[in-house]
Amino acid sequence: MALKPLAGITVFENDSFVAGPSSCLGLAQLGAEVIKIDPIKGGPDIDRWPITPEGRSIYWGTLNRSKRSVAIDLRSEAGQELAQALITSPGEDAGIFVENNVGRPFLSDEVLRGKRADLIHVKVQGSADGGPGVDYTVNAEAGIPLITGSAEVDGPANHALPAWDLLCGQAAATAVLTGLLHRRSTGEGLYEEIALKDIALAAVANLGWYTETLQPAGERAKHGNHIFGSFGSDFATSDGRYVMITAITKRQWGNLVKVTGLTEVVAALETALGTDFALETNRYTYRETLEALLKPWFAARTAAQITADLEGSGVLWAPYASLGEVAQETLAAAQDDPAGAGVLRTLESEALGTMLVGASPVRVNGEYLAEDSPTVFGSATEAVLTERLGLGSAEIGRLHDEGIIAS
Amino acid sequence: MALKPLAGITVFENDSFVAGPSSCLGLAQLGAEVIKIDPIKGGPDIDRWPITPEGRSIYWGTLNRSKRSVAIDLRSEAGQELAQALITSPGEDAGIFVENNVGRPFLSDEVLRGKRADLIHVKVQGSADGGPGVDYTVNAEAGIPLITGSAEVDGPANHALPAWDLLCGQAAATAVLTGLLHRRSTGEGLYEEIALKDIALAAVANLGWYTETLQPAGERAKHGNHIFGSFGSDFATSDGRYVMITAITKRQWGNLVKVTGLTEVVAALETALGTDFALETNRYTYRETLEALLKPWFAARTAAQITADLEGSGVLWAPYASLGEVAQETLAAAQDDPAGAGVLRTLESEALGTMLVGASPVRVNGEYLAEDSPTVFGSATEAVLTERLGLGSAEIGRLHDEGIIAS
Repeated sequence: MALKPLAGITVFENDSFVAGPSSCLGLAQLGAEVIKIDPIKGGPDIDRWPITPEGRSIYWGTLNRSKRSVAIDLRSEAGQELAQALITSPGEDAGIFVENNVGRPFLSDEVLRGKRADLIHVKVQGSADGGPGVDYTVNAEAGIPLITGSAEVDGPANHALPAWDLLCGQAAATAVLTGLLHRRSTGEGLYEEIALKDIALAAVANLGWYTETLQPAGERAKHGNHIFGSFGSDFATSDGRYVMITAITKRQWGNLVKVTGLTEVVAALETALGTDFALETNRYTYRETLEALLKPWFAARTAAQITADLEGSGVLWAPYASLGEVAQETLAAAQDDPAGAGVLRTLESEALGTMLVGASPVRVNGEYLAEDSPTVFGSATEAVLTERLGLGSAEIGRLHDEGIIAS
Repeated sequence: MALKPLAGITVFENDSFVAGPSSCLGLAQLGAEVIKIDPIKGGPDIDRWPITPEGRSIYWGTLNRSKRSVAIDLRSEAGQELAQALITSPGEDAGIFVENNVGRPFLSDEVLRGKRADLIHVKVQGSADGGPGVDYTVNAEAGIPLITGSAEVDGPANHALPAWDLLCGQAAATAVLTGLLHRRSTGEGLYEEIALKDIALAAVANLGWYTETLQPAGERAKHGNHIFGSFGSDFATSDGRYVMITAITKRQWGNLVKVTGLTEVVAALETALGTDFALETNRYTYRETLEALLKPWFAARTAAQITADLEGSGVLWAPYASLGEVAQETLAAAQDDPAGAGVLRTLESEALGTMLVGASPVRVNGEYLAEDSPTVFGSATEAVLTERLGLGSAEIGRLHDEGIIAS
């Protein structure tokens, strides 16, 4: 059986969308117990796309599995008190709360810390001033869309991936564990706030990309599908597929030139241009020329031929896959060898059918942490109230009848 | 003075590019001491773009600041022994190692764990099978580029942001702290491997995007700059700027319709189509129609007018900025009010001039953790060897003379 390095830790979450839920999913996969306090009719993401034909949210169900869902009417005073009592309930490795609320005074740090002084409280926000922000708005503000995509297309290109939400979620997981280490050392809690906009700005700054614009070269231009500062681009195959080819190191470049039969052409070009493509700087400078030289080799071959030719060649490359192709490959691999599964797994859910889910990408002592279960909305309400607050069945029945809780 | 929640923890890193270095930068910002073991001539990223006109890497200098750099000839046996001795040197909260090496037996987990059994060893890889992988190749394999960008453009669109590298770095930081909590509880170390490809596959899976393709709707189509499953897109202004407008909630949508004067048009359209745009599902279905309706309002106004009109309107939106504009705004803000700085800060470096850097986006008890300093390659070699291994000046001099270390 795989280790559960965070076993014994209990995290409460009351959040929505990607950042908070993905952070707590990651902690659950590392062994923590995650108790999700859900508004009695679901949060704003309960019906979010992608959805099944019946309207069930694959999004919510996938990001929130392996958690225990407690459904409480958070508009009622009694429900608010229950939520507070859970979040601040005793336990050396409890008292941990991840949330992304705006304007809910009963969940403010001041109020909660009054009930448990050593609380570890991680708040995900849009902007550090308390204003809203989503992946698409902070991406625009951080400057990424104006350097994304083809230089021939005017205007911004948004990314499809909610990269900032995901990064914010991982930062929230780091913040939870930082708080726990600090509390174990000092006995003190922490209030940790993380704004999505700050995540984006800090990450781009830490790549040096803002500093770069202060140098004589100034603004970075769009570079399409090329790798900035080195060599790499997409190439179309003869059968309508695409491959991503990179040559970041000198050795990779040498291998690419060799396998494509361009050794003499490239040598002659280096002489003609007075340059040396062994240096990635020069490969970047002449990227469009090199791309044009390589293009016919790929255009004359099928993806299968290219795969055969590049295998064992020492070229760093990958085929472009569609989401559906990844899904079908995963299903086929699971059928062939359930025990040999990689990070992707199948999980059967009553609400969503066959789900394709990710184990923890952190392999511990050589093993994927892949224990997983679908979460049914509200299904842990009674058990958690009994375990954490000691409520009896009469009290739970009364809360049910009054519409304060659901299960 | 701001708290340093990870004070007392010492992390050794021997890595390159984005993932490992960004993970350790984040840990340094939370208060850990990070000792970077650098190959004596620098790792493969030491000259990476963006660079200054003198060829100094802004990339390396920005990702590796606030660390102590120790330069060792890792090809020599004596240098390998020094690196091993540092990584496994005693200390309750030392014995933590982040790396991304391929094929360096002297840094294998087996060898290092033989010298310190409770080591926390976090290895960043390309692929879980030990093969290579970079952000661009794993992105292609995960299926993102084929749903990115305009539907009118064939083929894949790579993202400019190394999203997977950054996410992998944050996962590595989480892994370090997970290991430390586990070691404090059990006395046992952990070997934690993280493959970049697994990071990408697991994240996309956990958004439900692979599962989605198993449903009747099948493959997701490219949706350009639109927000999937809700309403949001970019709009051009009359003065050549772009704004990102979103309406994810019913209230945001209502506010957007109101401020653009389209209340009656939208109501009539709802009647004509027999739909209700209060539901985000319907806003997504008719996204192109709604975008076309809204376009003239933005096209008739300058960015400044739009800002004035949208301020206080309850619409969630953002202007698109370029990297250079973010940089200039940051410089101006720092000049106006150095004390009021947000997550972005200036940092003066002898090698790189004025750097724009990110504080820790995790605000602790209301404060940014912004202590920061440029790292000079090899500058901590002697101090670290003295502190951690007790080497005297004669021994250090000898290692210097033999070319085993540099400073």
